[in-house]
Amino acid sequence: MYVLGIDPGLTRCGYGCVRETSAGQSVVSAGLIRTPVEVSLPRRLAMLRAELVSLLAELKPDAVVVERVLFQTNAMTAMSVGQASGLALATAAEADVEVAEYSSNEVKLAVTGYGSATKTQVQEMVARLLGLREVPRPPDVADALALAVCHFAMIRGRGLVESSTSPGRKEKTS
Amino acid sequence: MYVLGIDPGLTRCGYGCVRETSAGQSVVSAGLIRTPVEVSLPRRLAMLRAELVSLLAELKPDAVVVERVLFQTNAMTAMSVGQASGLALATAAEADVEVAEYSSNEVKLAVTGYGSATKTQVQEMVARLLGLREVPRPPDVADALALAVCHFAMIRGRGLVESSTSPGRKEKTS
Repeated sequence: MYVLGIDPGLTRCGYGCVRETSAGQSVVSAGLIRTPVEVSLPRRLAMLRAELVSLLAELKPDAVVVERVLFQTNAMTAMSVGQASGLALATAAEADVEVAEYSSNEVKLAVTGYGSATKTQVQEMVARLLGLREVPRPPDVADALALAVCHFAMIRGRGLVESSTSPGRKEKTS
Repeated sequence: MYVLGIDPGLTRCGYGCVRETSAGQSVVSAGLIRTPVEVSLPRRLAMLRAELVSLLAELKPDAVVVERVLFQTNAMTAMSVGQASGLALATAAEADVEVAEYSSNEVKLAVTGYGSATKTQVQEMVARLLGLREVPRPPDVADALALAVCHFAMIRGRGLVESSTSPGRKEKTS
């Protein structure tokens, strides 16, 4: 099974595709989609969407996991993250792929078993689970991979977790 | 010249297309795109995008004007409005149409000449300018038409306004 994590953003949108087999989890592809800041906002959003469409066509994941956007202190950033997440969610639905959203805290809990884990602890656990020698860089890529890892944990533990600690709501596109 | 105003939203997305000729301005088409609340968020966003693509193909506007989303008190609404606006902006850019964004206050100022005008005053002025007997309903439609009217006012007054009161930034997609 292939799961594609997406950490939405306009200037930097991280993605990470993880495959799970009986032998464990491994990274299929990971990277950053960037759009140039000197280009207009509508054009940047269109560029991001085109990249996401290509990525889904190329990787053909079984599920797409997008970070659930919550309000942030920086209004401008929150809005562009919201716009990017809207494109990611719509693109995944259009490709008829199952979509899930998890908040940053849900990822922490699922990956480390500890909701107050630091970002570094999450990244180190993700690297270990994926058999990487180092924490993936930049952080947007590590976050995207963490979303994919979180989704596998949610799938495995769903029955148990849902009846206790209110995990990420899962949204099916069909 | 045809200008399509879009008041972005997930549950209710208003649109209004206005034509300006030497005889004045008139409504070409106006309405509401709705997506069912019982459907998943990714699927709703995909439905909204499909409707926007159809609308642009049908109306072939010379410019698309989207309300600039600002932070609101209701976090959930602001986020879905941001997601919808991202889709509207990207869709317009993909159709190679000129795109502008104006905030609600910029619309008030451009339409009534008074930045603190009430919503009702704006809607009544829009109805008068467009030769309508009544204020368009629902408000999302009136807001979308006001965005289009605002854009015509901005185009006419650009030189003057830009040098004085900082109007809506205009973003070209090409």
